[in-house]
Amino acid sequence: MVLSPSCSFIAGDHGAWEVTSVAPVAGECLEPTPYMDIRNGYVTRLPVDFNWLLRGVTSNQRYVNNAEQACLMTAQPQLGRPHATCAALIPVKKNETWWAMTQEDRREIFEEKSKHIATGLKYLPAIARKLHHSRDLGEPFDFLTWFEYGPEDSVAFEELVASLRESEEWKYVEREVDVRLKRTSGMRMDS
Amino acid sequence: MVLSPSCSFIAGDHGAWEVTSVAPVAGECLEPTPYMDIRNGYVTRLPVDFNWLLRGVTSNQRYVNNAEQACLMTAQPQLGRPHATCAALIPVKKNETWWAMTQEDRREIFEEKSKHIATGLKYLPAIARKLHHSRDLGEPFDFLTWFEYGPEDSVAFEELVASLRESEEWKYVEREVDVRLKRTSGMRMDS
Repeated sequence: MVLSPSCSFIAGDHGAWEVTSVAPVAGECLEPTPYMDIRNGYVTRLPVDFNWLLRGVTSNQRYVNNAEQACLMTAQPQLGRPHATCAALIPVKKNETWWAMTQEDRREIFEEKSKHIATGLKYLPAIARKLHHSRDLGEPFDFLTWFEYGPEDSVAFEELVASLRESEEWKYVEREVDVRLKRTSGMRMDS
Repeated sequence: MVLSPSCSFIAGDHGAWEVTSVAPVAGECLEPTPYMDIRNGYVTRLPVDFNWLLRGVTSNQRYVNNAEQACLMTAQPQLGRPHATCAALIPVKKNETWWAMTQEDRREIFEEKSKHIATGLKYLPAIARKLHHSRDLGEPFDFLTWFEYGPEDSVAFEELVASLRESEEWKYVEREVDVRLKRTSGMRMDS
């Protein structure tokens, strides 16, 4: 469970999460890796066997309106639920056209056209989600979204990811990688 | 002139800007310092005589709407104009109540109630302004705003700062320091 606003995703030969796949969606992929760990803060001393490091920070809400915020507060579960042994880390970078738009134009595409928040809400509380911002840190991706769900919700998760990728908003994605993981026994929250 | 999105404000015994005052507005002040330099990127090797370091990053627009953006694009001047030998660095930290609000509530206070953008526009092109974001970097302030203007616009600058500080938005400021500077001859853009 990540407690500090900043966190580091470290892929390497050891870690609390077994990486089952690293797949390219758009642009350059990340290196394959057998394991991944999530650490609080920005890790500066890396293990010698690390494959990649991605860093992000939880921040204030950017697009959610008051009604959506109220729904999210009621429906969204915590991370680290014992049954949620499946996870995905989806790093995304949007293009310069996206970032040059004003807030109102980005919100219009994000929600009014693409239903990003409404789509996520449909899958709550089954699929827990945490967004980390990376762009202002000078990282290779703009966002790192972390999802946790039970094996019984795997089909629902594929539906969620597929509908987001079909949206208008996704036309602005220039790089995306899809990392899938399974919690190793060492990190089980019920043990 | 700052070219990279990230930059470091380094206060110490040397620098291209002479610091004429460091005044507390809310919360803890910064140390007095005779000079300040602005460097591209996040400086990690600091001069031995440095007094403080603040870092920030230019980022996408957060509140400006399309009409306001069009006005800003037309009216806002570049930094580094030869006659603009006066400057101010105003680091601000807002409280948790501000950051817990949704975008629509923050925009309502920022512009509809406080006229933050409209007030800044009134003083263009006399007063050039550049906003650096710091909150997501884990810095002590949330924003570092840098202003440049000619000595003949000093009274206008005091008016601008005073009207922002009287606004509804400023009730959410928990720490603010007002640093005033004069360009030293070494950095004159016309020399």
